Amino acid sequence: MARSRDRNPRGQNLQAAAGNGLIDRRALLGRGMVMAGAMGAGIGPASAGAEPLAEDPWSLEFGDPMPPYQVPSKFEAKVARTLSNPDHEPRNSHARTPHHRLDGMTTPNGLHFTINHGGVPDIDPDKHRLVIHGMVKQPLEFTLETLSRYPMTSRVTFLECGGNSAPMFSPVPMQETVQALHGLVSCAEWTGVRLSTLLEETGIDPAAKWLIAEGADSPHLSRSVPVKKALDDALIALYQNGERLMPGNGYPMRLLLPGYQGNMNVKFLRRIKAVNQPAYSYFETKNYSQILPGGKTWRFHFVMEVKSFITHPSFGQSIKGPGLYAISGVAYSGTGRISKVMVSADGGKSWGEAALQGPIHEKAFTRFVMPWRWDGQPAVLLSRAYDDGGNVQPLRAEFVAMRGEAVNPVTTPLAFPNQHYNSTTSWAVDGKGEIKHVYA
Amino acid sequence: MARSRDRNPRGQNLQAAAGNGLIDRRALLGRGMVMAGAMGAGIGPASAGAEPLAEDPWSLEFGDPMPPYQVPSKFEAKVARTLSNPDHEPRNSHARTPHHRLDGMTTPNGLHFTINHGGVPDIDPDKHRLVIHGMVKQPLEFTLETLSRYPMTSRVTFLECGGNSAPMFSPVPMQETVQALHGLVSCAEWTGVRLSTLLEETGIDPAAKWLIAEGADSPHLSRSVPVKKALDDALIALYQNGERLMPGNGYPMRLLLPGYQGNMNVKFLRRIKAVNQPAYSYFETKNYSQILPGGKTWRFHFVMEVKSFITHPSFGQSIKGPGLYAISGVAYSGTGRISKVMVSADGGKSWGEAALQGPIHEKAFTRFVMPWRWDGQPAVLLSRAYDDGGNVQPLRAEFVAMRGEAVNPVTTPLAFPNQHYNSTTSWAVDGKGEIKHVYA
Repeated sequence: MARSRDRNPRGQNLQAAAGNGLIDRRALLGRGMVMAGAMGAGIGPASAGAEPLAEDPWSLEFGDPMPPYQVPSKFEAKVARTLSNPDHEPRNSHARTPHHRLDGMTTPNGLHFTINHGGVPDIDPDKHRLVIHGMVKQPLEFTLETLSRYPMTSRVTFLECGGNSAPMFSPVPMQETVQALHGLVSCAEWTGVRLSTLLEETGIDPAAKWLIAEGADSPHLSRSVPVKKALDDALIALYQNGERLMPGNGYPMRLLLPGYQGNMNVKFLRRIKAVNQPAYSYFETKNYSQILPGGKTWRFHFVMEVKSFITHPSFGQSIKGPGLYAISGVAYSGTGRISKVMVSADGGKSWGEAALQGPIHEKAFTRFVMPWRWDGQPAVLLSRAYDDGGNVQPLRAEFVAMRGEAVNPVTTPLAFPNQHYNSTTSWAVDGKGEIKHVYA
Repeated sequence: MARSRDRNPRGQNLQAAAGNGLIDRRALLGRGMVMAGAMGAGIGPASAGAEPLAEDPWSLEFGDPMPPYQVPSKFEAKVARTLSNPDHEPRNSHARTPHHRLDGMTTPNGLHFTINHGGVPDIDPDKHRLVIHGMVKQPLEFTLETLSRYPMTSRVTFLECGGNSAPMFSPVPMQETVQALHGLVSCAEWTGVRLSTLLEETGIDPAAKWLIAEGADSPHLSRSVPVKKALDDALIALYQNGERLMPGNGYPMRLLLPGYQGNMNVKFLRRIKAVNQPAYSYFETKNYSQILPGGKTWRFHFVMEVKSFITHPSFGQSIKGPGLYAISGVAYSGTGRISKVMVSADGGKSWGEAALQGPIHEKAFTRFVMPWRWDGQPAVLLSRAYDDGGNVQPLRAEFVAMRGEAVNPVTTPLAFPNQHYNSTTSWAVDGKGEIKHVYA
């Protein structure tokens, strides 16, 4: 028998944080938060051996064998990346992370997003080479084995495609999941060799201000990277969440530029050339350029700026009746550490501060959570992130005024602004608990 | 053409940290550590378009399709868990993590260790229930869906089988990889609901000092857990590195008791009973008991104590000629945060402090790294961890004096001490760079 949904058996006062049911996050900080009996279903007085708990088949049979490399349960088949090019046509392809089915701050390797412009190369790691050359005293060539002799460093960091959230430039809110809208960002622990170490070893010329990084896949994707960034926190990453990089994420090695646009983190990295000016390659002057309302583009736009979105509840899910819920999502910033996430349940009229779930790393996903008592009335949920550099996620009205909106992405795709969307995402909950995407 | 292996092109002084080539970790803290030309092979003066870099097949062809759930490259097939029961006989089975092929602090979900006593149950998450009953005011029954409405918390934590490293009790050092010796420990980000929240919701009786936690697999593995621990940092974990738990790691939910013996973190959790005394179940009085030299056992031994081992280089690997190497491994402690790891290259005669690679979390793997210049002479490498609670990993001589050594694990298995080994592991490098397991 279901218990009353809003009784609080311990008499705990759930203090409001903002309008429309948001509850002070400090309710989570004590021993735990009494969810006011919203969740459990009473099973009657318990007595030893007399619980009405079914013995399901899996409790009565010897189970399955263990595989050498384990994969999720067959019941999790829907927790998968969505593919933009499932028939493997000779063009680019995208695989998007299902954020609405995940929690925590790590993206598991099976579900990390990836975009490839020439398919996924099947690279023999023993034959792969990395060359560093150009304006250096001593050009060097590395194998995976020689690189592996260097001391490694780990960075927990998000990677985000410059074009992630492009559907948010649509003048009409697209009715899509958080995976379709924001699935081109993920977060992992990356481990590898500091690029600064290798550049020092080559004796890089102080006049070299740029590096041209080039991949070994057939498009030989190349990007220009400021030497300053390379000497700061860049890695040649060899491991992803502890194991060698996934094939779609750059196996056997990739450039890692924490906080910078995804495709600058060149995958299948095979060559770095030190030069004194950028290359203005295809992928930096055309494909990943930000078109502004006046028709011009920014010359470069490297940093992925402070952003957040709610993953639970979100479009495609529904909530079942009034009561207490946890609003949860991810926040991240290419300019630092998340310092605060504000959540609104009334479309931005009032805001309450969410709890940060931790662990909190610089330039990494930070999970936020906000307790919410839904009264069964329509509500509009959105989140807004702040970082420790003083940067704030822009609200949508100010953002599209600056960056533009798509007039008609189908007929005039070239005029479609589609890069670096970092404004807010709003979910409208109707009286039945169904969720729509709205612009608040 | 190979460059000289011990020339330092930048004239950097690599200060000694201890005997036999250990180099001060501060060499890693600056812009990077010049590895004294040990690594690269010169490729001659570079000129645009004239690098002698082969165009391998994967650079000339359109690549492979992207899968919805990605798995490692076929070239990584050897990076797999080793199975103790590959023919799936009706007994327990172990799958061990290949630490010597991993780096960083995360164990990827595919490679997390697991032990199951009745195979891996194939649980339908929609039918699975969790009941909390016993000495509570209001017994509660939860579905995965009702649990998912609670605010979640994440903890990056190691899990270790009480019997991990049991081969180290052998009187003769076993010539085995770090996977065979220490593969029953792994580290992940676990996300779930605080058990304290659920216990409060049931109105647990203050006189209840123990919980009996029971799994839904066919052995119905049950363990007694102090309520004090449950109210401290225990979770009902639903996610592992961001995705739902792996089938072998407790899908769809498990108890998580950071720092406590692996099997107390009951998998496939279906029932928690609040009681006033422990159950003395099979798995706590027989299977996971620590036999001491006098023949007695400790009543309980919950906490996995401070420990470390070197993964690179280690048994099964070899090092190729004199020069600079990175010695790397993992350290962890069930009693806190790793504060320091000391490394010796001369069998414990002198010790130098390793760099902690980070990120550093309480009760989690902390990767350490130590630069080492090998002179080509025999060396014995070992590591020793310290935590912020003042606990120190014991040296082997003092450890076996206290805990005992196996007389003959084959003929007298019941007298074989095989639990909670947390002493040091030593690798001997011979003049050819081959590595053996020794007791130093």
